Amino acid sequence: MAKKYVQIVDPIHDFITVYSHELGLVDSPIFQRLRRIRQLAGAHLVYPGAQHSRFEHSLGTMHVAGQAASILKEKGYLSSDDYENIRMAALLHDIGHGPFSHLFEEVLQKNKTISHEEIGKKIILESEIGDIINKSGFDKKFLSNLAFGNSKYQFMNEIISGGLSADMMDYLLRDGYFTGAEHAKIDFMRIIHSLDVHEKKLSLAKSALYSFESMMISRYQMFKAVYFHKTVRSAEVMLIQSMLLADKELELATDDIKKYVQMTDEFVISKLVSLEPKDADLKRARQLAIEYQERKLLKCVYEKIFTRPRMNQVNTDELQNRIAKKAQVNKCEVFIDISKTPSIPLSPSKTESKSIILATKKGEGPKESYELPISEIPLVSAISGFMDMLRVYTRQQFRKKVEIAANVILGENI
Amino acid sequence: MAKKYVQIVDPIHDFITVYSHELGLVDSPIFQRLRRIRQLAGAHLVYPGAQHSRFEHSLGTMHVAGQAASILKEKGYLSSDDYENIRMAALLHDIGHGPFSHLFEEVLQKNKTISHEEIGKKIILESEIGDIINKSGFDKKFLSNLAFGNSKYQFMNEIISGGLSADMMDYLLRDGYFTGAEHAKIDFMRIIHSLDVHEKKLSLAKSALYSFESMMISRYQMFKAVYFHKTVRSAEVMLIQSMLLADKELELATDDIKKYVQMTDEFVISKLVSLEPKDADLKRARQLAIEYQERKLLKCVYEKIFTRPRMNQVNTDELQNRIAKKAQVNKCEVFIDISKTPSIPLSPSKTESKSIILATKKGEGPKESYELPISEIPLVSAISGFMDMLRVYTRQQFRKKVEIAANVILGENI
Amino acid sequence: MAKKYVQIVDPIHDFITVYSHELGLVDSPIFQRLRRIRQLAGAHLVYPGAQHSRFEHSLGTMHVAGQAASILKEKGYLSSDDYENIRMAALLHDIGHGPFSHLFEEVLQKNKTISHEEIGKKIILESEIGDIINKSGFDKKFLSNLAFGNSKYQFMNEIISGGLSADMMDYLLRDGYFTGAEHAKIDFMRIIHSLDVHEKKLSLAKSALYSFESMMISRYQMFKAVYFHKTVRSAEVMLIQSMLLADKELELATDDIKKYVQMTDEFVISKLVSLEPKDADLKRARQLAIEYQERKLLKCVYEKIFTRPRMNQVNTDELQNRIAKKAQVNKCEVFIDISKTPSIPLSPSKTESKSIILATKKGEGPKESYELPISEIPLVSAISGFMDMLRVYTRQQFRKKVEIAANVILGENI
Amino acid sequence: MAKKYVQIVDPIHDFITVYSHELGLVDSPIFQRLRRIRQLAGAHLVYPGAQHSRFEHSLGTMHVAGQAASILKEKGYLSSDDYENIRMAALLHDIGHGPFSHLFEEVLQKNKTISHEEIGKKIILESEIGDIINKSGFDKKFLSNLAFGNSKYQFMNEIISGGLSADMMDYLLRDGYFTGAEHAKIDFMRIIHSLDVHEKKLSLAKSALYSFESMMISRYQMFKAVYFHKTVRSAEVMLIQSMLLADKELELATDDIKKYVQMTDEFVISKLVSLEPKDADLKRARQLAIEYQERKLLKCVYEKIFTRPRMNQVNTDELQNRIAKKAQVNKCEVFIDISKTPSIPLSPSKTESKSIILATKKGEGPKESYELPISEIPLVSAISGFMDMLRVYTRQQFRKKVEIAANVILGENI
Repeated sequence: MAKKYVQIVDPIHDFITVYSHELGLVDSPIFQRLRRIRQLAGAHLVYPGAQHSRFEHSLGTMHVAGQAASILKEKGYLSSDDYENIRMAALLHDIGHGPFSHLFEEVLQKNKTISHEEIGKKIILESEIGDIINKSGFDKKFLSNLAFGNSKYQFMNEIISGGLSADMMDYLLRDGYFTGAEHAKIDFMRIIHSLDVHEKKLSLAKSALYSFESMMISRYQMFKAVYFHKTVRSAEVMLIQSMLLADKELELATDDIKKYVQMTDEFVISKLVSLEPKDADLKRARQLAIEYQERKLLKCVYEKIFTRPRMNQVNTDELQNRIAKKAQVNKCEVFIDISKTPSIPLSPSKTESKSIILATKKGEGPKESYELPISEIPLVSAISGFMDMLRVYTRQQFRKKVEIAANVILGENI
Repeated sequence: MAKKYVQIVDPIHDFITVYSHELGLVDSPIFQRLRRIRQLAGAHLVYPGAQHSRFEHSLGTMHVAGQAASILKEKGYLSSDDYENIRMAALLHDIGHGPFSHLFEEVLQKNKTISHEEIGKKIILESEIGDIINKSGFDKKFLSNLAFGNSKYQFMNEIISGGLSADMMDYLLRDGYFTGAEHAKIDFMRIIHSLDVHEKKLSLAKSALYSFESMMISRYQMFKAVYFHKTVRSAEVMLIQSMLLADKELELATDDIKKYVQMTDEFVISKLVSLEPKDADLKRARQLAIEYQERKLLKCVYEKIFTRPRMNQVNTDELQNRIAKKAQVNKCEVFIDISKTPSIPLSPSKTESKSIILATKKGEGPKESYELPISEIPLVSAISGFMDMLRVYTRQQFRKKVEIAANVILGENI
Repeated sequence: MAKKYVQIVDPIHDFITVYSHELGLVDSPIFQRLRRIRQLAGAHLVYPGAQHSRFEHSLGTMHVAGQAASILKEKGYLSSDDYENIRMAALLHDIGHGPFSHLFEEVLQKNKTISHEEIGKKIILESEIGDIINKSGFDKKFLSNLAFGNSKYQFMNEIISGGLSADMMDYLLRDGYFTGAEHAKIDFMRIIHSLDVHEKKLSLAKSALYSFESMMISRYQMFKAVYFHKTVRSAEVMLIQSMLLADKELELATDDIKKYVQMTDEFVISKLVSLEPKDADLKRARQLAIEYQERKLLKCVYEKIFTRPRMNQVNTDELQNRIAKKAQVNKCEVFIDISKTPSIPLSPSKTESKSIILATKKGEGPKESYELPISEIPLVSAISGFMDMLRVYTRQQFRKKVEIAANVILGENI
Repeated sequence: MAKKYVQIVDPIHDFITVYSHELGLVDSPIFQRLRRIRQLAGAHLVYPGAQHSRFEHSLGTMHVAGQAASILKEKGYLSSDDYENIRMAALLHDIGHGPFSHLFEEVLQKNKTISHEEIGKKIILESEIGDIINKSGFDKKFLSNLAFGNSKYQFMNEIISGGLSADMMDYLLRDGYFTGAEHAKIDFMRIIHSLDVHEKKLSLAKSALYSFESMMISRYQMFKAVYFHKTVRSAEVMLIQSMLLADKELELATDDIKKYVQMTDEFVISKLVSLEPKDADLKRARQLAIEYQERKLLKCVYEKIFTRPRMNQVNTDELQNRIAKKAQVNKCEVFIDISKTPSIPLSPSKTESKSIILATKKGEGPKESYELPISEIPLVSAISGFMDMLRVYTRQQFRKKVEIAANVILGENI
């Protein structure tokens, strides 16, 4: 018998089918809250169209993951149950995101050393989300592992996150569409139809290698045009700093799920702009939030692409000190921003991917699989050198001084 | 010398140029606040992509109005100053919108009998917006008249609002794009290039009549698919009712500009869901807001297209009473919704357009203009009968009872 | 085991899968010849992008028919064999088209009283196409009936041709894309997902009625903007006339399949422009072809929308005589063009559709089906009055005289 | 007074305005003939949508060149006359193309050592095209220099051809659209708005460098997906070979303009397939043309990306001999194909571009310009290594033998 479903109109995928057991999750307040968390925190200040939320992206990821799973089911790697589990896990993969999506993670990690994935697991295992899952006949433990990279079948995780994932295909298309940047024209149907499995890992038909290459280039272009755009990051650096300064006062970095799910973009902003300026930090946090809201953004005075070793070895705290001292400004007027995006997407286990598995087939012969190092894919290897970027920001009035200081200190060595 | 400008990426118009004197307005907090007022109040609950705001639409309207003005300048009807004034006025045409855009107007009109245009004038004339305008060398009184339909040259108003306006061209394209409904594929460039002026009124080259017809059809399709979609209106009816009930307590319908510009979608929602339930009305207002936010929407139990005379003659209060009585439910459980959109867009002076002026040219002869009654345009006349709609909503638990009552009462006569 | 296939990139459907048994047909010279028959005969003279051919459209129709069949298979109305047959039949539905597609039919019908469908049947049954079909294990007789409206299951025919057909969905989208007219934004996925079967006839879920309405409007808009565009038809009237005059000499209207499949657009044009002017008719045929090729087109001097009774009752020969006489020009300088497109698409049996079957479902109850007269569908009924059009063309030098004559004769009565 | 014009609907640029003096050229038979020369010779055999012609591309190039010229006029580098000349020259830049566009050049160059640009000049200076130009008040000598890279103001040439040219912007967008490959989503409006002039050369605002980078990547992707696609080139190699073999018989490589402008794609194909097989060469030419038309294409048995020195040093004749000998097949069964596309577009003077001039502006200071070596643009430098490709083709029956021979000979050294 045909399953019951609704169809949701979506500008990216035309229609997204949501089956009734999924609808229970979608309609829960914790999931609905994703409507109020923008997919791209501060990007709408530069790309006004970028008002889209984690809600649409979660539906889209489920949709694409379902298409991928359906192909692998046809090829004999997945059962009908697997297919349903993968859709559910994809739907939930961002359930742990807090206000301003990835920005909030910097708050979580600095002050609480937890990630949005851990919050996500907690939400699945300990909140009403888990109850809904269980009532629908699914296993919340299993889904939690699948959603956050801990399934024992690596390729099932890879359908959801990583360099060939539904997550990436949806966000590249969606972010390109809503920003209007539109670099992200990817042949995602070709990639999906070319997926295969080799030793429990996801592989790709060699004939789709160019599509993969194109997708990586799109990602690089979106990184430069949107995700790490100079002004977008200016706004985001302000938000992060404001949240860090106000964290103690407002208890933002919490793992109390009840409190956590109250927080949305506008909720946190309204808290920040109405902080009582009890001390210098809170005053500063409030000031940054107000300036963010009125779009009085920090100015970028220094930008450099660094080659390896990667810049996460930079001691930003010390660097901030040195520049402030040389510029003779207060340390809190110097903002260091370092790109954290890996040039090649991380695998679901959060390690850097160094190769891709290709499946090839000659004439009537059997399928053969082999690993191709990323470094041998035209253009993709070239990208890696250009995504390691460091920027220095400050306020308008300190512009000149901090620019000179940054040039003196960073021009030579780091 | 070339004027200074920035270019904003926009998915609808690719790039929107904003000149420095306009940027002053755009960057003011009162204008930035439009980012937090959704273009389509509750539509995102049905079309998740519809998160776009009045901010983008205002920029887009300025862009299209500038294109139209530029054509009319080339044709000798406008000066360079007119061109600049029209852009500024178009930028400001929605500055008076409150939370949830058009929904808020029902609150304003019921409890205060003011319109968003009057608020808009006040903002231009009495707030810092007026100061910025004057400092840029423009005349705030003049712009206010131009933005809200009171210019002495009717065609200059018509560029901004009405059946051939930049406002409509932008919102049809934009709403179609962000909802994904995409009915709104209009040849807006053809219409703009075909604009002309006849006796101070805007006219259209006859050769573009089909494009106008298509635009009217798109508008009708968007009306049915989005603006007056059954479930979209369900959400919006809840919001309106909640605001009306809480108006006294929260002082929503204010013409105190300072207070007015504090209010945004999420601001008002957060006030509504945290109302203290001091009396039955406030309890009910809170309840409706919470159910809105959790997407537990009212059910439509009756829908009918009525022919003329138009339904604004219906006494909704009496009708609500009669249905409630017959259904034996509390009156507040019966919600009547009547479409208020005119089948043909209103002129800037808010009267119904009954004709369009066409300009025609035979061979080498002079241009001739004549009025074509709307009723003679293929399809457009046909639309009018189908946009007069009345619906009855109630909660899930009263569904059956109210459905029967509505059918008994409305099936026969009204 | 998975079936072998290739994937063809298509701007309309992204990828079109062609299975190996279908590839045999596609790769045959008779099918490849469709690449040289433009989908829209003379439209590229007005819309330069409209160079697309019957080849792409045939692939696209197969693709859409496959999607529709797949939905009906899921719903239990079709077997896997049916699915394959429907794809094959859709692929072949235009195999009988001659040069300039529908234009050639006027030559066939006037001088031979055969249709492109009859030629199509002959090609399937008597040429190597039939051999390929049989070798692939299909039944050429069965496919021929299916492709041309003679299957005993009406809904299987209706998937291929008629008002809900794959044929129409593909051509509206494709013609809109390649002309750039782009009126044709149809929710074809929604229509396809909403197909059902009622008493061996194709039906549509009521919830998709608006999508059907939109598709009919798109068709009407394409009719006006492209198919029956004044200048497009001018070019086509010239081609038809040229072919009719040269038919005897060149033996165009043949049912000798060997000769028939030699003829393509450019082949026939090259024959026409190099005709030996042995008599007045041939001289005239050559002249028209040369002028067509150099884009010296006839001028339209009269255009009128007629209401019913339909204009096929007009005696064009007599009308031509009367106008020529009154204008004092040679009869052959007067060209009468009458739209033959039915306002609602014909059913596969070539009769006019007067209703559509809708399937509706209330709550948990069973599905109910009922017939809705076309006249009750908003806007669709309105279209019918506006597609009955008569035009008079002549050459530049007779413009004035013929215009006056046509106005005198046609202004009053017909 | 406003100039007279028509507007042509175009899927890429929506509307292309053609002024009356340009219309004279467009409507001439020599220009109309471009409708019958496909933009992408054999690509439609792989991408069926790619039926578009040089005609549309010429209009599109004029349109984009006009936009660029308009920007440079605003910036004070061009007069109104320059603007008009640039549009005319852009319109004519491909007027010298023969059948199958670039393929025919290989015939011209091998047997006559002339280029399509030289033919173009001749057409402008010596045919009726020149008369039309002069009658419109333009200077045919001047336009000819402008159209083919010999203007004394280099930047005026660069608007038409080269790495920042209207030609490239139009063909990338157009070829992407009609093939459906759609890699070619380029921010061409941003590039155009960022054009400037430095020492008579075209320069680009530094802020648009990423858009330039993206355009180069699009070009690379189109090269791989379409222009040098394995199967596309198979078809094209067959056509070239067939024309070369039949050249003497059919006098294809002519600089007799009268004869030259007779030749179109279908004209030449019909000549080739009906060649009298008087000798082995003609028999072979005919055979290749027939197989092309029936899409029985050569098979690629070897493909390699070579690094520098560039492969034009390869002696293809000798290589062909060696492989044929080793494979023990007739030399004419071995086809060598080497990519000739420079990784960075050639300048109008046909030399390889090694740098781009960037204009930068700091705060209120004056504009500064500097040359950036191509090798320092992220990704663009990386492309160069991957566009030097060599392939070996043969017929199906010699597949295995030639594959082995090619591997032996080319695997080691070249």
